[in-house]
Amino acid sequence: MNKIITISREFGSGGREFGRRMSEILGIEYYDKEIISKIAEKADLSEGYVKEVVEKRPMPLFPMTIGATFAAVGVYYPLMVEESVYTAQTEVLHELAEESSCIIVGRCADYILREKNPFRMFIYADMPSRVERCMKRSSPDEHFSEKEMKKKIKNVDESRAKYYDFYTGRKWGDRQNYDVCVNTTGKDIKLLAEVYSRMLQDYNSK
Amino acid sequence: MNKIITISREFGSGGREFGRRMSEILGIEYYDKEIISKIAEKADLSEGYVKEVVEKRPMPLFPMTIGATFAAVGVYYPLMVEESVYTAQTEVLHELAEESSCIIVGRCADYILREKNPFRMFIYADMPSRVERCMKRSSPDEHFSEKEMKKKIKNVDESRAKYYDFYTGRKWGDRQNYDVCVNTTGKDIKLLAEVYSRMLQDYNSK
Repeated sequence: MNKIITISREFGSGGREFGRRMSEILGIEYYDKEIISKIAEKADLSEGYVKEVVEKRPMPLFPMTIGATFAAVGVYYPLMVEESVYTAQTEVLHELAEESSCIIVGRCADYILREKNPFRMFIYADMPSRVERCMKRSSPDEHFSEKEMKKKIKNVDESRAKYYDFYTGRKWGDRQNYDVCVNTTGKDIKLLAEVYSRMLQDYNSK
Repeated sequence: MNKIITISREFGSGGREFGRRMSEILGIEYYDKEIISKIAEKADLSEGYVKEVVEKRPMPLFPMTIGATFAAVGVYYPLMVEESVYTAQTEVLHELAEESSCIIVGRCADYILREKNPFRMFIYADMPSRVERCMKRSSPDEHFSEKEMKKKIKNVDESRAKYYDFYTGRKWGDRQNYDVCVNTTGKDIKLLAEVYSRMLQDYNSK
């Protein structure tokens, strides 16, 4: 049976690098941004549009199951699109999980693939180290002050939390949703990825 | 330099067994209940009394530093005793950390020994599995219903949180205070202790 590892992460915690490095060490597939293209293809929408939908907060007024009914009268079209994106996302994740062992970053994969018993990781760090990491990797034409970067980090996390909470009925970042939560503050991500990869190999071999 | 591992844990999560097993695998000292006797000796109080002090919630009206002043007039004697217990606790933990590499369960050790850069673990589990674990290990003369056990678990955690928050100014269970948080729900503690011990050996050898 394929081994699925899902990674949820605070923005700027290095969760994406952690996941990518683990996939290299474990020799398994790694899915992150490429999921967006797959969703776009399936939902017959542009990549840019899907990206926008999954990165903004969902409309919080109704639980998603009500959307379709109202959408019939045309008022809740955005929610209907959000729903079709989420449906495509669910299908894409199931297909990927069926194909081979893999690491999936974000996209509510811990919840969507819950019946496949994934190993669910949550990667986090304190705010100063997240700000530092984001400042380092920001492109030269971005001119964020530390204060602005902190605000951006908070906004991204808030959107992720709202999206996750809305579709899963769970609370993003609540430790109960994960098998392990790893703090990257002051740590070398490469080293962390190495030791946790071996830990997982060890765990799966028993 | 001695390697210190601190373990904070939700009541019933198996954190104590996890710590004990890790200490056996790693071949290092393990301190849990024995810290109480050491504190009692240092503070010149009975073990039973120290146990009572560290297991009940501290008086929340004043920050601990105010206690001694008021205690002079005899009104805040209990708080003065709490303070002397906490002082003895601090000394005992520093002595143990100086002696040899070790695993310390509870006692705000992650905070008290923060300058020794301990590896800080938080062990948790969902409520049903904690209730199940506690029901199994309760002595035959205890007759807790599941509902009563759940209440007991919540009470113990609340006391631990209040004690920790009061003395450290941090929030017990907040992931930022730990290097890793491990969910024991549905897992074999023996296996978890094995794989995390190796992970730590691996981590420390780099």
